[in-house]
Amino acid sequence: MIAEFLGTFVLILFGVGSVAVAVAGLPGSGRQVGEFGPANWLIIAWGWGLAVVFGVYVAGGVSGAHLNPAVTLAFAVRRQFPLKKILPYWFAQLVGAFTAAALVYSSYRWAIDAAIAKSGAPRDQSLATYSIFATFPAEYFGNSWWGPLLDQIIGTGILLLLICALTDTRNTAPMSNLGPFLIGLVVVAIGLAFGTNAGYAINPARDFGPRLFTFMEGWGDIALPGTFQWFSGYWWIPIVGPLIGGVIGALVYDLLITPVVRLLHGEREEGPATEEPS
Amino acid sequence: MIAEFLGTFVLILFGVGSVAVAVAGLPGSGRQVGEFGPANWLIIAWGWGLAVVFGVYVAGGVSGAHLNPAVTLAFAVRRQFPLKKILPYWFAQLVGAFTAAALVYSSYRWAIDAAIAKSGAPRDQSLATYSIFATFPAEYFGNSWWGPLLDQIIGTGILLLLICALTDTRNTAPMSNLGPFLIGLVVVAIGLAFGTNAGYAINPARDFGPRLFTFMEGWGDIALPGTFQWFSGYWWIPIVGPLIGGVIGALVYDLLITPVVRLLHGEREEGPATEEPS
Amino acid sequence: MIAEFLGTFVLILFGVGSVAVAVAGLPGSGRQVGEFGPANWLIIAWGWGLAVVFGVYVAGGVSGAHLNPAVTLAFAVRRQFPLKKILPYWFAQLVGAFTAAALVYSSYRWAIDAAIAKSGAPRDQSLATYSIFATFPAEYFGNSWWGPLLDQIIGTGILLLLICALTDTRNTAPMSNLGPFLIGLVVVAIGLAFGTNAGYAINPARDFGPRLFTFMEGWGDIALPGTFQWFSGYWWIPIVGPLIGGVIGALVYDLLITPVVRLLHGEREEGPATEEPS
Amino acid sequence: MIAEFLGTFVLILFGVGSVAVAVAGLPGSGRQVGEFGPANWLIIAWGWGLAVVFGVYVAGGVSGAHLNPAVTLAFAVRRQFPLKKILPYWFAQLVGAFTAAALVYSSYRWAIDAAIAKSGAPRDQSLATYSIFATFPAEYFGNSWWGPLLDQIIGTGILLLLICALTDTRNTAPMSNLGPFLIGLVVVAIGLAFGTNAGYAINPARDFGPRLFTFMEGWGDIALPGTFQWFSGYWWIPIVGPLIGGVIGALVYDLLITPVVRLLHGEREEGPATEEPS
Repeated sequence: MIAEFLGTFVLILFGVGSVAVAVAGLPGSGRQVGEFGPANWLIIAWGWGLAVVFGVYVAGGVSGAHLNPAVTLAFAVRRQFPLKKILPYWFAQLVGAFTAAALVYSSYRWAIDAAIAKSGAPRDQSLATYSIFATFPAEYFGNSWWGPLLDQIIGTGILLLLICALTDTRNTAPMSNLGPFLIGLVVVAIGLAFGTNAGYAINPARDFGPRLFTFMEGWGDIALPGTFQWFSGYWWIPIVGPLIGGVIGALVYDLLITPVVRLLHGEREEGPATEEPS
Repeated sequence: MIAEFLGTFVLILFGVGSVAVAVAGLPGSGRQVGEFGPANWLIIAWGWGLAVVFGVYVAGGVSGAHLNPAVTLAFAVRRQFPLKKILPYWFAQLVGAFTAAALVYSSYRWAIDAAIAKSGAPRDQSLATYSIFATFPAEYFGNSWWGPLLDQIIGTGILLLLICALTDTRNTAPMSNLGPFLIGLVVVAIGLAFGTNAGYAINPARDFGPRLFTFMEGWGDIALPGTFQWFSGYWWIPIVGPLIGGVIGALVYDLLITPVVRLLHGEREEGPATEEPS
Repeated sequence: MIAEFLGTFVLILFGVGSVAVAVAGLPGSGRQVGEFGPANWLIIAWGWGLAVVFGVYVAGGVSGAHLNPAVTLAFAVRRQFPLKKILPYWFAQLVGAFTAAALVYSSYRWAIDAAIAKSGAPRDQSLATYSIFATFPAEYFGNSWWGPLLDQIIGTGILLLLICALTDTRNTAPMSNLGPFLIGLVVVAIGLAFGTNAGYAINPARDFGPRLFTFMEGWGDIALPGTFQWFSGYWWIPIVGPLIGGVIGALVYDLLITPVVRLLHGEREEGPATEEPS
Repeated sequence: MIAEFLGTFVLILFGVGSVAVAVAGLPGSGRQVGEFGPANWLIIAWGWGLAVVFGVYVAGGVSGAHLNPAVTLAFAVRRQFPLKKILPYWFAQLVGAFTAAALVYSSYRWAIDAAIAKSGAPRDQSLATYSIFATFPAEYFGNSWWGPLLDQIIGTGILLLLICALTDTRNTAPMSNLGPFLIGLVVVAIGLAFGTNAGYAINPARDFGPRLFTFMEGWGDIALPGTFQWFSGYWWIPIVGPLIGGVIGALVYDLLITPVVRLLHGEREEGPATEEPS
C-alpha cells in the first residue's frame, strides 16, 4: 500500500506538473484553454507517459504498480488480485494523488496566481488553471454525458488490453524489466490519440484526488461537481468510465488472445492467464 | 486470424485517433488542411508509430503480427508464410481496420461535426475531417498517379527492408522482445521522412478499411473513388503501391544482406533467411 | 575523477548546447525570453535528458556516473559512497561543467553575438543569451527565494528518489545496461513537469560551473550574484536546493520502499539497500 | 561493402527525407529558410536520429555499420579497422549517399518544384530546397571558415567519443543489441544541441554525396563549391571537419577512459580497447 501511495504520488507529480508547465509555466503558454496548440499537447502527452513509466518503476517490485483503481478492479476480475485488497489499494492511490496535487500546487502557486491575474477572471472561473489538476469534457460535447463516458471507456479499455498484453510472458512481453517503459508509452499513445475529448483521465484516482484538492483550494463548481458553461456535474464520469472500460479491455484480451497463447504454450491450468510480478 | 484482427484494430485505433486529435480534437487545431503545422505532424508521426508498437505487442506471440497485407504478401514471397493463408489474413486485417475506424468515429463524431460546422462546407467536401481516416495525395502532384504510387512503393519498401533486418537474428536484431518497439520506430521515421507526400498509408488495410467506412458515413467521392479538385480515383494507389513496394523491400534485403549474414554464420540450408516467431 | 569530469563535460555540452539552439541557433528562435514557445521547450527538455543519458554512458562503468554534487551527497548519506571522496568528485564535476560551457561558447559565440546585436541591449542585460548557460527564476516569483528553493528541492528530490528506484535490483531496475537511458528520461520528465519555474538546475555543478563562465565572459550581475529586475542574488539557490532535495529524495526511498523490497527478498544485512556499479 | 552501401542508403533516405518533409512537404512549412521554427527542427532531429538507428540495424551484423567516413578513419586510427579497407568503405558510403539522394529527389521533385515556384527565385538560388540535401553555415558566421569547421570538429568529436563508450563492453555498453538505438539517440542529441550552426553534417559522405547530386540537378554554386551571399566555397568543411573531429573524439576516449576500464577489468593486452562486432 505504501508503494501504491508513492507510485501514484510520482505519477501525479510528473503528470500534473507537465500540464502546469504547458498551461502556466512557459513564458509563451496560452492563458486560455483556446490558445492551446499541438506543441503544448506534446509536452502533456510525454509528461503523463513518463509519469507512468516512473510511477511503475518506483512501485513495480513491491505492489505490482497498479497506480489506478481501474487496473486494480480489472485485475481482481481476472482473479489475479484478491478482492479484499481492492479498497485499501484504491484508498492508497487516492491519497497519493491528492498529496501530489498539493505538492505541485505548493510549487506552482506563483505561476497559477500570475495566470489567473492575467486572465482577469476569478479563480473559480479559471478553467485553464483548473485543467492543470483535473479533467473536463471538450465544449463540442455540449451537455452530452454519453460522449465523454464512451471516451473514458475506450481509453481505459485500450490501456488494460495493452497492460494484459505487455505482461503476458506467453505473448511477446518485453523483457529486461522494460515493461514499465512500454506501459508508459501506451499512455503517451492514448494521450496522442484519445486525449483531447475529455483530458484522458483513464484513472479514477488521477482525476478525483486532484479534483478534490482544487475544490478545497477555491476552484469551486468547476472542480466539484464539475460544472461549467456547457456541462453540469461531470465529476462521476472519469470515475465510472475507467472502471467499466478497464474491465472490458481485460475481458477482450482474455477472450480473444489468452485462449490462443495458452494453446500455443500447451498449458492446461484453469487460473488467470497472466501473473503480475507482485 | 483473431490476433491479426485485434492487432490491426489496435493499430488503427491509435493511428486514426492521433490524426483526429491533430485535425479536430485540439482547441487550436487547424480546421483546414492548409493550417496544419509541424507540431501537428509530430503528434501524427508518433501516434502512428506507437500504434504499430502496440498492435505488434498484442498480436506478436500469436500470428506474427503482420497487421498489413503488404507484410503478409512479402513474407509469402520469401516463403516464410503459407500462400493459402494470405487471403484469410488480408480479410482479418481489413475487418480490424474497418471496425477500429467505426469505434474512433463513435468517439470523435462530436468533434468532427463541430469541425465541419466551423468550416462551413458539407461533409462530402471536408477533406480535413476525411483525412482523419484515410489518405490522399498532396495537391502539388496534380493529377499525376506516378508520384504518389512511387511514394507508396518507397515507403513500404523501406518498411519491409527494415522489418527483415530487425527480425534477422543473424544480423543485429534487438533482443529482450524489443523488436516491436523498434518496428514502431521505423514507422515514426517513415512518417517524419515520407509522410507528407500522400499520407504514408504503406498498408492497404490501413487505408481501404477506414476509406470504406468514410464512404458509408457520407464523405462521398473524396472517400471512394478518392476524387477531389486535383485528382480523380485515388483509392487503388495505397493498395497497389504498398503491395509492390513491400515485395521489393524484402527482395533487396534478401539479395544484398541475407547471403552475407548466411555466409558469416556458416549456414548451408536453402530455406528463407529469417524465421518469424509465428 | 577523470570519468566524473568527462561525464559532466558531456552532460553540459549537450544540455547547454540544446538551449543555445533553442535561444540563439534556430532561424526563427525568439531573441527575447518572452517569445519562447512549447516547441522550444521540447528541444531543451529532450536535449538535457539525452545529455544525462550519454553523460552516464561515458562514465558509468568507471565512477558510477554521479555527474551531480547532489547525487554524490545523497549517496554518501546512504553510505554507498565514501565521505572523503565527496570533495574530489564535486571538484571534478565543477571543472567538467565549466570546461564544457567554455567549449559551447567557443562554438556559439557568433550566434550569441548576433542575438545580442539583434536585441539591442548590452551583453550584461541579455537574459536570453545568459539563459543558455545558467538558470534564473521566473518573473512571477518576484523576489521570493522560497518558491525557487522549493522548486529545486522538489525537482532534485524526485531525481534521487527515481535514481534509487532505477538502480535497486530488488525492485524493477531495468537490465541490459539500460539504466542510463531511463535515468535520462527521468530528466526529460523533470524538464517537462518542473522545468519552467526556475530552469531546473537540480545540479549545483550544472548551474555554478557555467554561471562562473558567463560571469567571466561579461554577463555581469545577472550571472553572479544572479541579479535582475525582480530578484537579487540568486546564485546560491541552485546549489543549496539540490543538495537538500537530493538527500530528502533518497531518504524517502529508503524509508518507504527499501524496507519492503528487503523484506520481500528475505535479506538481513544492515548496509545500504542499493549498490551502485562503482 | 554492400552493407555499408545499403546502410548509408537507409541513413540518407530517412535523414534527407525528413528535411524534405520539414522544408517542402508540410502544408504549412516555411518556403524560406528564415520561416523555420522549433517544431520543424524536432522533425529533422528525430528524422536523422532514427535514420542512424535503422542504418546501423541494416548493416550492423555485416560491416560493423560505420556509415560515415569519419567513423571508418577513427576506427582505423584506433587499430580496430584495417587501413587498406578505408578507401573501399569510403567509396561505398559515398555511393550509398548519392543514390539515396537521387531516390528522395525522385519522390519529392513535385514538392520541390512547387516550393521553388512559390518562392519566385530560380533553383540555383533556392537555399531552402538545396538544404533538403546538403548543409551550409548559418548567416551569422559571415565568411568565417573557422566557426563552422570548429562546429564540425566538436559535433563529430562527441559522436565518436560516445560510439566508443557505447560499444565498450568493459564500460556500461547497452546489451540486447540495443546499441544501434542508443547511437541513433546520440545523433538526435547532436542535432538538438549542435545542429543549427551548420546543419550538423558530421559525416563527409552524408554531405558530399547529396551535394554532388544537387550540383548535377541544377542547384549550381550553392551546391558546389558551396557559395551563397555570405560565404564562398564551403564544400570542404563538412569533409575535413568530421575527419579531424572523429579522430580527436576517439583519442579522448582512449586517453581518459580506456586505461581506467582496462585497469578495472584487470586486462593486460596491448591492443585497442573496443572490438566492433564486425
